[in-house]
Amino acid sequence: MSVKRRFGVIGGDRRQAELARLLREDGNEVAVWGLWDADSGEAELAEVTAAEVLILPLPLCRKAGILNCQKQELETRELFRQLRPDQLVLAGQVQNAQAHEAKEAGVTLLDYLAREELAVANAVPTAEGAIQIAMEQMPIILGGAETLVLGYGRIGKLLAHRLCGLGAHVTAAARKWEDRTWAEALGCRTLRPDQLDGQLGRFHVVFNTVPALLLGEPLLRQLPQDCLCIDVASQPGLDFDAAAALGLQTVWARGLPGKLSPVSAAAAIRDTVYHILEERGDHT
Amino acid sequence: MSVKRRFGVIGGDRRQAELARLLREDGNEVAVWGLWDADSGEAELAEVTAAEVLILPLPLCRKAGILNCQKQELETRELFRQLRPDQLVLAGQVQNAQAHEAKEAGVTLLDYLAREELAVANAVPTAEGAIQIAMEQMPIILGGAETLVLGYGRIGKLLAHRLCGLGAHVTAAARKWEDRTWAEALGCRTLRPDQLDGQLGRFHVVFNTVPALLLGEPLLRQLPQDCLCIDVASQPGLDFDAAAALGLQTVWARGLPGKLSPVSAAAAIRDTVYHILEERGDHT
Amino acid sequence: MSVKRRFGVIGGDRRQAELARLLREDGNEVAVWGLWDADSGEAELAEVTAAEVLILPLPLCRKAGILNCQKQELETRELFRQLRPDQLVLAGQVQNAQAHEAKEAGVTLLDYLAREELAVANAVPTAEGAIQIAMEQMPIILGGAETLVLGYGRIGKLLAHRLCGLGAHVTAAARKWEDRTWAEALGCRTLRPDQLDGQLGRFHVVFNTVPALLLGEPLLRQLPQDCLCIDVASQPGLDFDAAAALGLQTVWARGLPGKLSPVSAAAAIRDTVYHILEERGDHT
Amino acid sequence: MSVKRRFGVIGGDRRQAELARLLREDGNEVAVWGLWDADSGEAELAEVTAAEVLILPLPLCRKAGILNCQKQELETRELFRQLRPDQLVLAGQVQNAQAHEAKEAGVTLLDYLAREELAVANAVPTAEGAIQIAMEQMPIILGGAETLVLGYGRIGKLLAHRLCGLGAHVTAAARKWEDRTWAEALGCRTLRPDQLDGQLGRFHVVFNTVPALLLGEPLLRQLPQDCLCIDVASQPGLDFDAAAALGLQTVWARGLPGKLSPVSAAAAIRDTVYHILEERGDHT
Repeated sequence: MSVKRRFGVIGGDRRQAELARLLREDGNEVAVWGLWDADSGEAELAEVTAAEVLILPLPLCRKAGILNCQKQELETRELFRQLRPDQLVLAGQVQNAQAHEAKEAGVTLLDYLAREELAVANAVPTAEGAIQIAMEQMPIILGGAETLVLGYGRIGKLLAHRLCGLGAHVTAAARKWEDRTWAEALGCRTLRPDQLDGQLGRFHVVFNTVPALLLGEPLLRQLPQDCLCIDVASQPGLDFDAAAALGLQTVWARGLPGKLSPVSAAAAIRDTVYHILEERGDHT
Repeated sequence: MSVKRRFGVIGGDRRQAELARLLREDGNEVAVWGLWDADSGEAELAEVTAAEVLILPLPLCRKAGILNCQKQELETRELFRQLRPDQLVLAGQVQNAQAHEAKEAGVTLLDYLAREELAVANAVPTAEGAIQIAMEQMPIILGGAETLVLGYGRIGKLLAHRLCGLGAHVTAAARKWEDRTWAEALGCRTLRPDQLDGQLGRFHVVFNTVPALLLGEPLLRQLPQDCLCIDVASQPGLDFDAAAALGLQTVWARGLPGKLSPVSAAAAIRDTVYHILEERGDHT
Repeated sequence: MSVKRRFGVIGGDRRQAELARLLREDGNEVAVWGLWDADSGEAELAEVTAAEVLILPLPLCRKAGILNCQKQELETRELFRQLRPDQLVLAGQVQNAQAHEAKEAGVTLLDYLAREELAVANAVPTAEGAIQIAMEQMPIILGGAETLVLGYGRIGKLLAHRLCGLGAHVTAAARKWEDRTWAEALGCRTLRPDQLDGQLGRFHVVFNTVPALLLGEPLLRQLPQDCLCIDVASQPGLDFDAAAALGLQTVWARGLPGKLSPVSAAAAIRDTVYHILEERGDHT
Repeated sequence: MSVKRRFGVIGGDRRQAELARLLREDGNEVAVWGLWDADSGEAELAEVTAAEVLILPLPLCRKAGILNCQKQELETRELFRQLRPDQLVLAGQVQNAQAHEAKEAGVTLLDYLAREELAVANAVPTAEGAIQIAMEQMPIILGGAETLVLGYGRIGKLLAHRLCGLGAHVTAAARKWEDRTWAEALGCRTLRPDQLDGQLGRFHVVFNTVPALLLGEPLLRQLPQDCLCIDVASQPGLDFDAAAALGLQTVWARGLPGKLSPVSAAAAIRDTVYHILEERGDHT
């Protein structure tokens, strides 16, 4: 990353603040406004919005139409009006409404979370974060434990790999034949999701990565009483009410990278930003 | 696999013979003709071709228009004429000419090698086979060795994983950002292919999995004199002539699953066959 | 474990309570007194001390001469006087004074913590606990991190193995040639402790397992400012005062099995107890 | 290794020749006689035996009293008479008779194979070699295979680790409680040797590392017909005659480091030699 640029970084959580720090470490000029741990180093908003590349928070809004920023209530529509067409504006989890606002204001707004590469990069701290939670919540160790991973996409693959690496016994449940082949190749035992019935009695912990209800009451009832359920999917994969009624311990773990590994999460965004700039080639 | 069927298995190498055996072990009725290790158990060709599902060899032809079979020279065109439209005919590596012949004869011919799932399943014995070759050819052990894996697709991923598991130090070279992220997540160090120049002096073995020339003479020259090069790609990834002129030891390893792990390779084909039948659902 | 026995379990922390529960699960008769989470199920002390095998807490005393028990202040000398020579009395971390008291009272007192097997069994949750702490304290993930493990005994070996399994890069520092050979065989890079000088600048986290001062001020000064130091040794391996003065983040992690994995820790004690009984063979 | 010395290297197999080469690469002065691949570079015997440190082959003798050397028949007694008391003479697998001869001749003869460190270093290529043999002999891949490792000493530990790393399912049978704890901690399932009866029907390959008969006819009979048995112990751990009668495929794999990884094996001897010199300190 040899070309240095002027970045503006606005709003967000600790991850966004770390991103500003990392960009500075690389020799870029970085003006910040409304950061999580804002101190005396902040610039005027007008100065920040004048930057060549503007990085808005992830998610972009904290409620409909309002920028995700603690400093003051700022409408995204209002913010976009202050920007120029020649600037590159990046944000995470952009809703249709804001994409439309940007278009109307003639602003080039890209959602970096939509990039495949960042999805992969976020899967790593998500998988590690899920393991951290399991370690914290379980009174037994993962070494030698019987673990079930539902889904074998990016997060499932990494979770299964790390659990094996910790000496756990891992069963991966995946619908696709090729995913099960992958899982077996990496040392897991496998099940199809429709084979879970009758197989759940031995698990110490279940990790769900699939954004679709896989574990309803009849299956949850088959889990041992002290089995821990950790759900890292964007939509719940288990019936939390039924689990509560059954006395099962559950964790719905959202946003793990930002919460547990903000520096790694920020580094992944930084790399994606650089990558976007490299591909565009028009900001050199 | 509860539904039993009548299979005909014809021609091919040891893998095909093992496939017939595995299908029988599952309770299917299997008539065979022209197998690699044919003995007294073979049926008449007419009986075999009458089967509900016919499995032809991989590859289908040993030379243009001639079935891959040692027993006698048989034209595929001639074979297809003896078949019925209600039969399912499966073969591996079907060329356009044979696909055309089958169509003309009104035969339903599918290429099982074209299935994604078998591609994954074949990657596992290919990766393990490449490691076997490295162990056989190198006077040092892989534990602690510096290894380079070119490409991080199916085979590259599995190779890198197993090399790590053997205690080797693994550097993966991959063009795509997300592939490098994956490789790092699984414990490898990474390079872009355009960063190889100047980095090659430390490797004890290089595995190529990319079907495109990555290692020409200038790069090969940078490898240590006793570095072993193993190429498992379908098209050579290194300049074998230049390597020979430099005195480098090279192995172009083709068809590893069938050669080194015929039973595992046969089991993968069997599973794919079952899967095709399950999806069609019309042969129950 | 087919022979069922009458156990008395007294005092201690959550681990001791879990031990009582596990012994009951195996079909033994277990009378308890003064447990950590005592409820209505407790017996009279006289009934508990009459058991065939008596399990006292780990550590045996909470202060000199006083049993480690919250229920009431009970002198170990007093307790021993109530016991019979034909009972087997087991405790953890028995001091010389108590060993002497037991001898005077004619009581057969064994220290289960002195068994090699329990030392191994405790190393597993210690290693996993150290990793949990690292995950909790670091703003980056362990996958891809540069980690240093000082010492390659039981805990160091397991720590290094799990860190590799999480995709971290591991350097093990060990004095003995054979330990470094082991570490290299399992995928680590190695250093002698006297080679640390000048090599410390790249580490994100340092784990010490050696009960001797290895990292004094001059070496600590070479660590990056945001490097985390976790010490799991019984005697400090790093100069905590110097580390504090340098602004390094440190954790002196003691008693991890009992704190983080009480059920696994209790299971290890149970297995050791069974093993002691099996070897003695005189309590069947 | 900064101090350069004058070595004499005599006799032996390819490993010994590689040792001479490695010593030269480190800048030492090395005179050789009777090497495996001897060419024009050999010196006169008298010149070689005059060296400061003399390295004799492993094993020292090819038959009683005769040096392990192809060049000419040389009695060890005769050789020792030509040496001086101030020389350090190193050899591998020294028998009592030769130790006695050396003493009588006033020669300082050390057996480097007796060093713990070399035993560890040899276990690594032994474990990797056993895996190479399994790959070569089995028609299925190790990934996903059910493997049994008898014994969990140096070789058993490394074998189990690498098999796990290749995606195999590993069961370790070990007599000692702490060894089983280790094996479980590293992701294996475990059995006591006396629990093998009735458990053997699922294995694809059995590796024995214990120099004592564990698998007699009654147990061998329980293995699947196509199970491979590889014995790497110095004394057979399975009844080879019974196995042959049962039609089981067996390999008694001796001396794997020298045969399969001569350079790694030579490097381990070189390191041990340096270590011996370093400890003596009197040859600087």
